Amino acid sequence: MRLHASKEEIDAVCDRIAHFGYKIHTIQGEERVVIAAVGVGDVTSCLESLEAMPGVEKAVRISAPYKFVSKEFRNSPTKIRIRDLEIGGDDFVVMAGPCSVESEEQIMDSAHAVRAGGARVLRGGAFKPRTSPYDFQGMEEAGLKLLAKARDTTGLAIITEVMSDSDVPLVAEYADILQIGARNMQNFALLKALGRARRPVLLKRGLSSTIKELLMSAEYVVAHGNPDIMLCERGIRTFETATRNTCDIVAVAVLKEMTHLPVILDPSHATGKRSLVPALSRAAVAIGADGLLVEVHPCPEKAISDGAQSLESTQFQAMMRDLAPYVSLWKQARLASEPVTV
Amino acid sequence: MRLHASKEEIDAVCDRIAHFGYKIHTIQGEERVVIAAVGVGDVTSCLESLEAMPGVEKAVRISAPYKFVSKEFRNSPTKIRIRDLEIGGDDFVVMAGPCSVESEEQIMDSAHAVRAGGARVLRGGAFKPRTSPYDFQGMEEAGLKLLAKARDTTGLAIITEVMSDSDVPLVAEYADILQIGARNMQNFALLKALGRARRPVLLKRGLSSTIKELLMSAEYVVAHGNPDIMLCERGIRTFETATRNTCDIVAVAVLKEMTHLPVILDPSHATGKRSLVPALSRAAVAIGADGLLVEVHPCPEKAISDGAQSLESTQFQAMMRDLAPYVSLWKQARLASEPVTV
Amino acid sequence: MRLHASKEEIDAVCDRIAHFGYKIHTIQGEERVVIAAVGVGDVTSCLESLEAMPGVEKAVRISAPYKFVSKEFRNSPTKIRIRDLEIGGDDFVVMAGPCSVESEEQIMDSAHAVRAGGARVLRGGAFKPRTSPYDFQGMEEAGLKLLAKARDTTGLAIITEVMSDSDVPLVAEYADILQIGARNMQNFALLKALGRARRPVLLKRGLSSTIKELLMSAEYVVAHGNPDIMLCERGIRTFETATRNTCDIVAVAVLKEMTHLPVILDPSHATGKRSLVPALSRAAVAIGADGLLVEVHPCPEKAISDGAQSLESTQFQAMMRDLAPYVSLWKQARLASEPVTV
Amino acid sequence: MRLHASKEEIDAVCDRIAHFGYKIHTIQGEERVVIAAVGVGDVTSCLESLEAMPGVEKAVRISAPYKFVSKEFRNSPTKIRIRDLEIGGDDFVVMAGPCSVESEEQIMDSAHAVRAGGARVLRGGAFKPRTSPYDFQGMEEAGLKLLAKARDTTGLAIITEVMSDSDVPLVAEYADILQIGARNMQNFALLKALGRARRPVLLKRGLSSTIKELLMSAEYVVAHGNPDIMLCERGIRTFETATRNTCDIVAVAVLKEMTHLPVILDPSHATGKRSLVPALSRAAVAIGADGLLVEVHPCPEKAISDGAQSLESTQFQAMMRDLAPYVSLWKQARLASEPVTV
Repeated sequence: MRLHASKEEIDAVCDRIAHFGYKIHTIQGEERVVIAAVGVGDVTSCLESLEAMPGVEKAVRISAPYKFVSKEFRNSPTKIRIRDLEIGGDDFVVMAGPCSVESEEQIMDSAHAVRAGGARVLRGGAFKPRTSPYDFQGMEEAGLKLLAKARDTTGLAIITEVMSDSDVPLVAEYADILQIGARNMQNFALLKALGRARRPVLLKRGLSSTIKELLMSAEYVVAHGNPDIMLCERGIRTFETATRNTCDIVAVAVLKEMTHLPVILDPSHATGKRSLVPALSRAAVAIGADGLLVEVHPCPEKAISDGAQSLESTQFQAMMRDLAPYVSLWKQARLASEPVTV
Repeated sequence: MRLHASKEEIDAVCDRIAHFGYKIHTIQGEERVVIAAVGVGDVTSCLESLEAMPGVEKAVRISAPYKFVSKEFRNSPTKIRIRDLEIGGDDFVVMAGPCSVESEEQIMDSAHAVRAGGARVLRGGAFKPRTSPYDFQGMEEAGLKLLAKARDTTGLAIITEVMSDSDVPLVAEYADILQIGARNMQNFALLKALGRARRPVLLKRGLSSTIKELLMSAEYVVAHGNPDIMLCERGIRTFETATRNTCDIVAVAVLKEMTHLPVILDPSHATGKRSLVPALSRAAVAIGADGLLVEVHPCPEKAISDGAQSLESTQFQAMMRDLAPYVSLWKQARLASEPVTV
Repeated sequence: MRLHASKEEIDAVCDRIAHFGYKIHTIQGEERVVIAAVGVGDVTSCLESLEAMPGVEKAVRISAPYKFVSKEFRNSPTKIRIRDLEIGGDDFVVMAGPCSVESEEQIMDSAHAVRAGGARVLRGGAFKPRTSPYDFQGMEEAGLKLLAKARDTTGLAIITEVMSDSDVPLVAEYADILQIGARNMQNFALLKALGRARRPVLLKRGLSSTIKELLMSAEYVVAHGNPDIMLCERGIRTFETATRNTCDIVAVAVLKEMTHLPVILDPSHATGKRSLVPALSRAAVAIGADGLLVEVHPCPEKAISDGAQSLESTQFQAMMRDLAPYVSLWKQARLASEPVTV
Repeated sequence: MRLHASKEEIDAVCDRIAHFGYKIHTIQGEERVVIAAVGVGDVTSCLESLEAMPGVEKAVRISAPYKFVSKEFRNSPTKIRIRDLEIGGDDFVVMAGPCSVESEEQIMDSAHAVRAGGARVLRGGAFKPRTSPYDFQGMEEAGLKLLAKARDTTGLAIITEVMSDSDVPLVAEYADILQIGARNMQNFALLKALGRARRPVLLKRGLSSTIKELLMSAEYVVAHGNPDIMLCERGIRTFETATRNTCDIVAVAVLKEMTHLPVILDPSHATGKRSLVPALSRAAVAIGADGLLVEVHPCPEKAISDGAQSLESTQFQAMMRDLAPYVSLWKQARLASEPVTV
């Protein structure tokens, strides 16, 4: 309560809290009164309602707003099985491929190149979110078919983006993992549709979304029926312009403390610049991410989108060799149950 | 080009530019070479492609990436007619009402209260984007029916949010203006569906979207067939936590220089705090916005959502009286063709 | 406390709180324990100490960390008298002039021009904070002497920047108001020296400083002996690049709720663009600022610094005429005791 | 130039550019004219001057604004020798110790503990920048004397903060490395004083400073006479509140591409939370930083400042053991001349 809040104001606040079904504890400080609400109820509405009342200085939530995705709900890591692959377990999983599916030749070359480098999942966009209506919007279903073909040929699993709730059934027919882009992290209609889908989901953090909001969006999907979600840090938007986004790498470690879901890092969007991808990938392994999502293109200079951040095939393979000793350390730590933390 | 870029690198860049259909101008500086591309083509892809090439320091776009929404395309203001109302013309338009439609009594009380205050449009959400899956998600079609009833009774036009491309036809059946929330500003599937709708659109700026990206999203709607768009500044996300968002009020003046579309300001979401709404509304009028979108609830303390930022009915009416002399100055300036600028 | 915090952890926290001199209230929730500390003491150290203890989920401060600058300490506005001028009272005060003092002719021309427009204070930098060591660093004491001469000729008061604690005595000899730049808002050695100075201070908000931190910096000056401070919003740093900074105009209204100190707005740095200055200035008057700090240069194109955001003399005079009816409304509201708020 | 800029406007711009000593290249596009200025001159002033001219759309700098700190000026890494230590060479250097010097016992215990863990430099603040005037401000010279004593006993080098140009000589008498805090990164009076000091400098990146601005501040120190600077990433300020700051770890890799100066990472301030420090430290080694600056306190719960982010002595030692295999990989890469980049 504010300094000098009146008896009436305090009583009204207590009544409101009681109305929401909470028990009340009043604390008389030297300067002001603090009122604690204890119990289970519609916390958001209660807080908003209290903030609107006269005499209230501020209303603070103490407990977390999510449930299923938290470690308090489930302490062992979620392991997502896709074909012979397990994400979130004892394997560090690399997903790689071009930004967009552009042609059969391009996606087949990419698939062979990333498999040769050690990737287990092929990425490639058939529906593309583009800032400009005049930019290439993706091959749509034709692109999905090419991805399926690449899977048949190489044995790689397929991850591809879905942009609208109405497209979920179609994309789920072809993809092994449904990718949700940063700009759709709070597309709630889409999140609900994903809850009804029978495919694992990779949920990218929004450009200006907090870690809590990312967890809330994952909670949406779980609450609507789909527990197989991996989270993805891909850089947030800040004032810095030297990189395309600012990679909040510590978010990986924070998420590992808060949730049992796997955490993937996308070094390509996080930096926007090919030369920075290998260094950030090493850091991602070292900090304990469960995998990487990397843009690789057989000929980045001819890529229709994201050329500047895509690795060439041989660069990707060199990076994977460079990563190998870090991945060994990662595995040792994982098998010893957990990375060393304080 | 980088310092010491090789002849081969420079030639390759020139070839690539030519391949995209541009003419080339090479400038030999004292330290480095700058290459200018002139003409019309797929600029985004060309820039990305160039950034990926060896020897390139950076690739910069000089011209604007949008067209239909720019003042260079059309210099006279877009005026949007809705019933007897015109937005973007010589009337300052206030849209007001509760965050969510909660019941017939609540929306009817709200409608009468905001009409009494001088509002011309009634706002109210039937589909609600909520961060938590456990919060109230809106009355959906039942809410739309109540809004239509309020319109029939009061003569107010109706603005309400649509969250998914698959809901556009349903919402367009009831609403006079389709509101797009900040989190959907780059929901491209939705933007395309709006292009096909026969209703004006109010497009809110995303939490971390630049002014340019807001214009690009509007360009999507226009390019897909719907020219009746108003833009809405509702605060962006920054490090400051004293207010719910940070109102980038200067964006109103910047937009007025760049586009012919009407610009609305939402002082409720921009501040998140009822006591700040009247002051910011005065500023919005003074800086030259075309209207306001304000949250008003007959009993904010009982509101299901956004209670803290909603004005009570009598507060709204007091604010409108307080605004009147500012609106008179606004009108004088508008009739004298344009607010005084340098 | 965390879920499942042990009895020992809870006891240890209570001991630590007691050690800092607070009384303890323990609240047993359904899921976790909350411990409230009541009283007066070294809050920051106590909170940091608690955050470091096992079993602690988070430590939250309820009361404000500043005292002298808050409205709870003093409810009537601080009015700062400088010669025949009063800032924070019933006059809207405009301070104007060039970014840097460049020559006698330039500063004299500026002084006459801004006085003709209705400014009461002349601004001009003699010590210039410049991002690059190769840019013009100011005329230093020679510049101060020219400012004093301009004051003698025109009767305008003088505001100029001081950048180091060791320069405070020198600058205070010449200036009527000591300006502290955004990059020095948390230069604590400088703030302490200002506390010992006998001159009013204009303290600019840092590029990434919260409103609370601005008040804490003002508290430094007051706590060290100088109560005559005005605060200045000049834009914060965000992801938006269309303007030089993002003007957090609502900060003016927030500060008016929190503190009794005068609040000035700098539309030139907030926008970085001359054409936006008049529109933002109108908004600043409308929202209830106590004054403006504006860059005006007799020939902006020849200005050594900040040319793009400086108004020409005639543009400034036109802007002042445009502002006049808004200032009249401002005065009415001020005389009617306070701007209308909810 | 803008679309439709007049011949007179174009000529005036060319004259202005010529006046600054540049040669002119005019490029006639299909829609607009672009004017390129080539040569050496006062770029900042020229750009500002041009932005202020009629008909100018925007003025863009192509070349970098710094010189001495860039790799184009010097391609081999700067190695800073301090006693038997070399920073920026083939040793990964850990600097560790408490936030503040609090007492002889505390600093001696800290020194022994961090040396036992493998640190080579002892950190500890004697002058403390604190947001609140009521918080502990440091032991000042008495603290410096204790640091010197700890050096004499343990052989560790000493790093400590200096907050004002007037304190540089005093602090330089005791310290081996002068630390500049984030809030002073653009305290230009201080930067100039450091240029005259005969001690290496560790320059922390400001909370909202770009990588370019960090390099410009380093350029200040070099341009004023002191080439021995190491840069320090310590987290920037963003909207995310789960961590104290957001660690821009990619800045390490970006700086390694741009400058020859050593780059240190401070995982304590970057996270603000002890449990996250070991994970981020691993990532810092993996991405190629030259060293760490870590807060360690013999009894964090009793620390006067920054307790929540300080490691206990045994935790620090455990972290150093955990880091060892990553440091081995770092060394291999360093000896193989450079970390693998594309």
